[in-house]
Amino acid sequence: MISEADILNSFQHLVEDYKNDSLIAVGSGDDAAVIKSQSKDLIHSLDISKAGTHFPINTCPRDIAYRSIAVALSDLAAMGAYPSFITIALTSNKKNLDWYKDFNKGVETIINEYGIKLVGGDVTFGDLNICVNVFGYPYKKPLLRSNAKPNDLVYVSGPLGKARRGLIECDEKKSKYHSNFFRPKVRFDVSEYIADFASSCIDISDGLIKDLGSICKLSGVGATIRYENIEITSDIEDLCYGDDYELCFTCGSEFEESLMKDGFKPIGKIIKGSGVEVLKENKVLDFSKIGWDSFD
Amino acid sequence: MISEADILNSFQHLVEDYKNDSLIAVGSGDDAAVIKSQSKDLIHSLDISKAGTHFPINTCPRDIAYRSIAVALSDLAAMGAYPSFITIALTSNKKNLDWYKDFNKGVETIINEYGIKLVGGDVTFGDLNICVNVFGYPYKKPLLRSNAKPNDLVYVSGPLGKARRGLIECDEKKSKYHSNFFRPKVRFDVSEYIADFASSCIDISDGLIKDLGSICKLSGVGATIRYENIEITSDIEDLCYGDDYELCFTCGSEFEESLMKDGFKPIGKIIKGSGVEVLKENKVLDFSKIGWDSFD
Repeated sequence: MISEADILNSFQHLVEDYKNDSLIAVGSGDDAAVIKSQSKDLIHSLDISKAGTHFPINTCPRDIAYRSIAVALSDLAAMGAYPSFITIALTSNKKNLDWYKDFNKGVETIINEYGIKLVGGDVTFGDLNICVNVFGYPYKKPLLRSNAKPNDLVYVSGPLGKARRGLIECDEKKSKYHSNFFRPKVRFDVSEYIADFASSCIDISDGLIKDLGSICKLSGVGATIRYENIEITSDIEDLCYGDDYELCFTCGSEFEESLMKDGFKPIGKIIKGSGVEVLKENKVLDFSKIGWDSFD
Repeated sequence: MISEADILNSFQHLVEDYKNDSLIAVGSGDDAAVIKSQSKDLIHSLDISKAGTHFPINTCPRDIAYRSIAVALSDLAAMGAYPSFITIALTSNKKNLDWYKDFNKGVETIINEYGIKLVGGDVTFGDLNICVNVFGYPYKKPLLRSNAKPNDLVYVSGPLGKARRGLIECDEKKSKYHSNFFRPKVRFDVSEYIADFASSCIDISDGLIKDLGSICKLSGVGATIRYENIEITSDIEDLCYGDDYELCFTCGSEFEESLMKDGFKPIGKIIKGSGVEVLKENKVLDFSKIGWDSFD
């Protein structure tokens, strides 16, 4: 039987020595972490990832770690914030220390990729459950969901549906979409690019229709988008599946030209009213028959 | 079947409107919370609580919420910090909305008791698992585990073993120790009192021997404590059971007199060396036969 101490020790090399660090005064090992006072607002979010709900139960520990952290970090990108540090609450029933070592390799890969710090966490025994807490600071000002205005244009940062294919094809070893689901790229590049002019932003975790719907609801507006303008991978259901973690954002039409030069084409427009309307060949599509998770 | 939205709605009245708040710029409802820049260092910790591991499976939802938050807050007290805000990651398989409403009453009770804010969270479906993230700011400077010095005196903030009795007697309706286990008081009062002179501090979550042992290990010292000086409830095993969430702290002997006036009597002394030695009638007690959890 491995002990909590064994598991925590397997994490230890990821928790740096924070002496003389400009951000972290005390990291893991004490009762709490101490984050030095900063002149910027702190952005904090968290995400729970569960086997069988958020990823297949046979996912390898490295991918579990990477994906759990990536999807949590994506909320920072959606807020127009860059990532700074994370903490992890890991519940696991694995008895084999190699599982934790492999999990930690996934943690190491992503914290190195984004240049962030792991500053603490907790480990307990039970059904696999990973809660990742993420912390960052705004590139400019926080990008909210609640600030879209009628006549703003609607954008998506990349193609939709790749992650869906990665999940469907996950038992095929060489699916070219594997990493789209299991190792999603967090769009900090786009977040930084739009930080000073976007009027609202959300990351697409539940599907474009639902997530753009959230912007509309919180902004008190509606949206009309054109199916032909949306880059998809398989079919129309790509608009209802999340997991791509692309950003959906809105901005005033005065930015259309410069966005076009940088490869961003609007998919639609914010309107007065409520709800998201999808037009295909100028006809309104009915999404009521496409169900998606109501409890994730 | 209740939806995630139903559950989140049941929390909504706990998440205030943060307009014009001095601390929180954006609370729940967006991708992340925005905490305004503060001139003090931020103290952050988290704790996972699981049914069957951290509390009995038949614990009522109010007590589950209260206790899960209290034990997480206790880490802030142990750091010499006052609490400011929390976020909760709740995994639950309950299908009845009343369960969540009752859980939220426990949340409401404790956030009102300590004057703190709930600023966000996540809800997912699965085995009951509560991860509470706590945030606070130091009363003076952070109290670390690693700063005890030889000749410092060792103190405990209150009697040990009451929570143990509360747990043992939890099926007896009128156990006078019920709240000691299910609704532990977080010793912010003591934390504030010792904040400017304690050399080290920890909260007793795993038992005095183990937790004082952690101070010793991280400070590179040993400790000798006298059984007769420790206020206990049942028997010697009270030194090995946690859950009381009293504080164990050390300080220089120059503070002994003023501490004595305020009712604090030292239980022992920090020495050169390593490990915790317990003397009873001047004989060293053997704790090797008393097992306690190694994976909690």
